[in-house]
Amino acid sequence: MFSAVEVIATKRDGRRLTDDQIDWVLAAYTRGDVADEQMAALAMAILLQGMDGGETARWTQAMIDSGEVLSFSGVGRPLVDKHSTGGVGDKITLPLAPLVAACGAAVPQLSGRGLGHTGGTLDKLESILGWRASLTLEEITAQLADVGAVICATTPTLAPADRKLYALRDVTGTVESIPLIASSIMSKKIAEGTGGLVLDVKVGSGAFMKTAPRARELAETMVRIGGAHGLATTALITDMSVPLGRAVGNALEVAESVEVLRGGGPADVVALTVALAREMLALAGVSDVDPAAVLASGAAYPVWERMIAAQGGDPSAPLPAATHVEAVVADRSGVVDVDALSVGVAAWRLGAGRARKEDAVQAAAGVLLLVEPGDQVVAGQPLLELHTDTPDAVAGARAALAQGLVVSEDPKPRPTLLHATIRP
Amino acid sequence: MFSAVEVIATKRDGRRLTDDQIDWVLAAYTRGDVADEQMAALAMAILLQGMDGGETARWTQAMIDSGEVLSFSGVGRPLVDKHSTGGVGDKITLPLAPLVAACGAAVPQLSGRGLGHTGGTLDKLESILGWRASLTLEEITAQLADVGAVICATTPTLAPADRKLYALRDVTGTVESIPLIASSIMSKKIAEGTGGLVLDVKVGSGAFMKTAPRARELAETMVRIGGAHGLATTALITDMSVPLGRAVGNALEVAESVEVLRGGGPADVVALTVALAREMLALAGVSDVDPAAVLASGAAYPVWERMIAAQGGDPSAPLPAATHVEAVVADRSGVVDVDALSVGVAAWRLGAGRARKEDAVQAAAGVLLLVEPGDQVVAGQPLLELHTDTPDAVAGARAALAQGLVVSEDPKPRPTLLHATIRP
Repeated sequence: MFSAVEVIATKRDGRRLTDDQIDWVLAAYTRGDVADEQMAALAMAILLQGMDGGETARWTQAMIDSGEVLSFSGVGRPLVDKHSTGGVGDKITLPLAPLVAACGAAVPQLSGRGLGHTGGTLDKLESILGWRASLTLEEITAQLADVGAVICATTPTLAPADRKLYALRDVTGTVESIPLIASSIMSKKIAEGTGGLVLDVKVGSGAFMKTAPRARELAETMVRIGGAHGLATTALITDMSVPLGRAVGNALEVAESVEVLRGGGPADVVALTVALAREMLALAGVSDVDPAAVLASGAAYPVWERMIAAQGGDPSAPLPAATHVEAVVADRSGVVDVDALSVGVAAWRLGAGRARKEDAVQAAAGVLLLVEPGDQVVAGQPLLELHTDTPDAVAGARAALAQGLVVSEDPKPRPTLLHATIRP
Repeated sequence: MFSAVEVIATKRDGRRLTDDQIDWVLAAYTRGDVADEQMAALAMAILLQGMDGGETARWTQAMIDSGEVLSFSGVGRPLVDKHSTGGVGDKITLPLAPLVAACGAAVPQLSGRGLGHTGGTLDKLESILGWRASLTLEEITAQLADVGAVICATTPTLAPADRKLYALRDVTGTVESIPLIASSIMSKKIAEGTGGLVLDVKVGSGAFMKTAPRARELAETMVRIGGAHGLATTALITDMSVPLGRAVGNALEVAESVEVLRGGGPADVVALTVALAREMLALAGVSDVDPAAVLASGAAYPVWERMIAAQGGDPSAPLPAATHVEAVVADRSGVVDVDALSVGVAAWRLGAGRARKEDAVQAAAGVLLLVEPGDQVVAGQPLLELHTDTPDAVAGARAALAQGLVVSEDPKPRPTLLHATIRP
């Protein structure tokens, strides 16, 4: 038998956790025999002392084993999913899932809500009239077979240890551990029963990983975990120092996604959607379709309509509009520079995001960029619009943008979108 | 304002906690606004990242400020106290407090109970018929003025932050932090209102500090904290690789203490009692009395009788005797070697100690050594007695002694009792 203090002391003293210790501590934590304060001490010890690849793979397995593992037999198409570590304006899942389905694979995207300055996929889709996030396993399976794409809420039965541990890490300063981040993401994706996985690991001011070495370490750790569990996994490391696209906020991002699905939209959103689709299709073994051509043709849009309608949504209903819209204008002439984190925080303060899990979000709130980073602008030119139903929030949003929306003679070069691809 | 996560992240990332952060987090923890899991993560971060002298002094002050600070004005004698970090057979407080009182100082010893293989002073005294540990502040003050020595339970109003934090550290693998150990001990002693403090920092198998460098670091840290708070503090580093004296167990240790108070008893107990008394009297400014002579004369014994009687105890009542006593005999001839931890664990298993705070202890249980480390013995000679009211416990006690009570041709040299003295 084990004691929590012995397991904590093992990692505290810089030693390796055994498989049995990992299995025991996560099972005991899930059933409440290891207390929150004990797991918090262990999480801090893991953050500061690390876990090696073997420990991290076992930790992931123990979290998977805490719940149910889904299996989508009978879908009739290869299954492949995508996960992003989160960024500002990152609506890529919305055009991507229908695109990959239009190319012949099936995408079982079990997703979450947003917290802080990054948005959540479910929050975005809930701005569509009638759309519902919660589906039964039977509904998910039927929709995968029929439409080829599902974006819905994860079920409470998937990796409950991760759910409990994530909430604990959030309040104990122990989020920033790469083994814990990697095992959290991978346990849910492996339990989801996908056949292949493409990771979009964001790096930059608006991302959780602020530096390239940290992003690479996270990407490599997750690809290794995928390999250890027999899940074909590829990671792209992509830029999040400027917002993705022009729209940041729930309904605003749905509208931009629809533009992309109809063959238009901002170049960076299109490029990243296509790059991720290529990797997903490669993992799914679909080699005879060019996702760039499919997206440009608008052929993914009907799949989007069916995907939304299958979950009760009306894809043709007008999206909510904010009651208050005002512009931020250039205070001088020059070249505009836009920082992702500043825009993310501004959108959050306008009502697009939440500070605590139980908060509501405004469907129509957010930031709409009217220019792109690197554009030449003149004094007085509108640079972006602030959208909100709570005008009192505008001052806070403007304050967030004060350092992050800058017009100068000496602009930063626009960063490369795709930094690296990590394969097994 | 502060957030718990920010304070945790500061230490997690190896930065210094500010005075305001320390004050806030301990006050908020005491009133319940910082949760146990948050303090556990912070404690682990402190254990792994350390705290410097300034942080540790402030942490101590914040724990003192969480409760009441006692003041014994009107006692009419200089106040001086002693604290031991705990060891096997460490009954020194019992003869020491009456001895120092007999020499003219007053000893306000607010003490605790035992946990694990080390005994607790209150547990020992409670083997005396009628003796009670809980006194009011008025009773303590009156007894200090009248008798000059009080050994009683600490009050819940002294450093409540420490009480709460210690219980948390005990279950989260965060006991072994020198800044946290040092501030825990010193906050209680400073809040107790003593005028001088002598620390007995034990080192060796039966001590909490197993190595000389750790013991020295703890001693130096506590002496520095004393200095920062204006409390004259001296630390002795003393051996705990063999048991102190021959008696280990509550009533057994009281009996041995009475021998010492009557001018007899084992040489090591006498030597350590006198060494500590000398340091205490020096801090109290009493320079005209030789504690060795006072102890040898038996003049401290009447003070003991009055101290016990003042707290309802009958110093002349027979001590409880175990219902079951059996000997452990030498399996060969040679020189005997006795390990402190093994004897401590054996006594604990016989019923002298407790595994959890809420457990009861047996007054009569314990180990009585019949020989001393280094003695020449012959095969079949009784080496020690096991005392218990629960004979089923004997097998466990014998198992604990298997490695620690050894007769060989090649004995270890008996360690020096006094390793070092640390002064400001």
